[in-house]
Amino acid sequence: MPLLQGVLADRDAWSAVGQCSIEKTMSALGTKSAMLIMREAYYGTTRFDDFAHRVGITKAAAAARLSELVDLGLMTRQPYREPGQRTRQRYRLTEMGADLFPVLVALMQWGDRWLDDRGGPVQYLHRDCGEPVTLALRCAAGHEVSSEELDLARRRPSKA
Amino acid sequence: MPLLQGVLADRDAWSAVGQCSIEKTMSALGTKSAMLIMREAYYGTTRFDDFAHRVGITKAAAAARLSELVDLGLMTRQPYREPGQRTRQRYRLTEMGADLFPVLVALMQWGDRWLDDRGGPVQYLHRDCGEPVTLALRCAAGHEVSSEELDLARRRPSKA
Repeated sequence: MPLLQGVLADRDAWSAVGQCSIEKTMSALGTKSAMLIMREAYYGTTRFDDFAHRVGITKAAAAARLSELVDLGLMTRQPYREPGQRTRQRYRLTEMGADLFPVLVALMQWGDRWLDDRGGPVQYLHRDCGEPVTLALRCAAGHEVSSEELDLARRRPSKA
Repeated sequence: MPLLQGVLADRDAWSAVGQCSIEKTMSALGTKSAMLIMREAYYGTTRFDDFAHRVGITKAAAAARLSELVDLGLMTRQPYREPGQRTRQRYRLTEMGADLFPVLVALMQWGDRWLDDRGGPVQYLHRDCGEPVTLALRCAAGHEVSSEELDLARRRPSKA
């Protein structure tokens, strides 16, 4: 597990409360139904009725979660109209929404290993070579890093 | 984003409800306070009072979350005694608990990018080379994989 370095080494000298990005992310969208709506968006769902049905929640719950995701910026609404129908809204992922994908992969990877007898019903494969895909820690110099080789440090101010 | 392959290609022909490992993981521990207790465990916290204080929740909430994490198998309790004090319990991560670490890194990475003006207050560095560490998708053959190069497939039965 990471070692706390520099000014972080004395854990009683600083507080993460209200600062931590894990806390902010969980506050913004840490509900099961929000995560499952994002799952369906990654799998190609765009229509309101499909989200509710595929996630297995009520239309009221789906409407509430989708509005929150739009307000947060993870999805946008786009009007569309099928012949003979009224105008409806499609939901599309934004870059901010697409960028949450590793969170879902990490949740799935852990559940596959620890909460499912069969190792999970589905898996991600690399299209080119067919091999299973997992998340790994990697540094900007290209090294693979284990959690035992991590330091946690205060972020250096950017030069920009 | 991943393409649904094989029997998964027709999204209306199958249901993820009750099967999906993302759903199971979020059902088991998808609360903000559980995730923040895990954060502190990764940063070395073991004592009950420290969890409550460092996460910024009441002792009652900390006790409830810690009991759930022990019952789930992510932590164990170990009795210890300081001179002149009554016996207390320390909390230690199990392998199951340690294995959740990528979920926290993914939550932090997303929050750093999208919810924090400064890019996040802290960062993970590779101890050997000092470079920032992020999560990446990698296949068993060692290739780095983007989310656009993923297939989602039904898991092949293991040979065991």
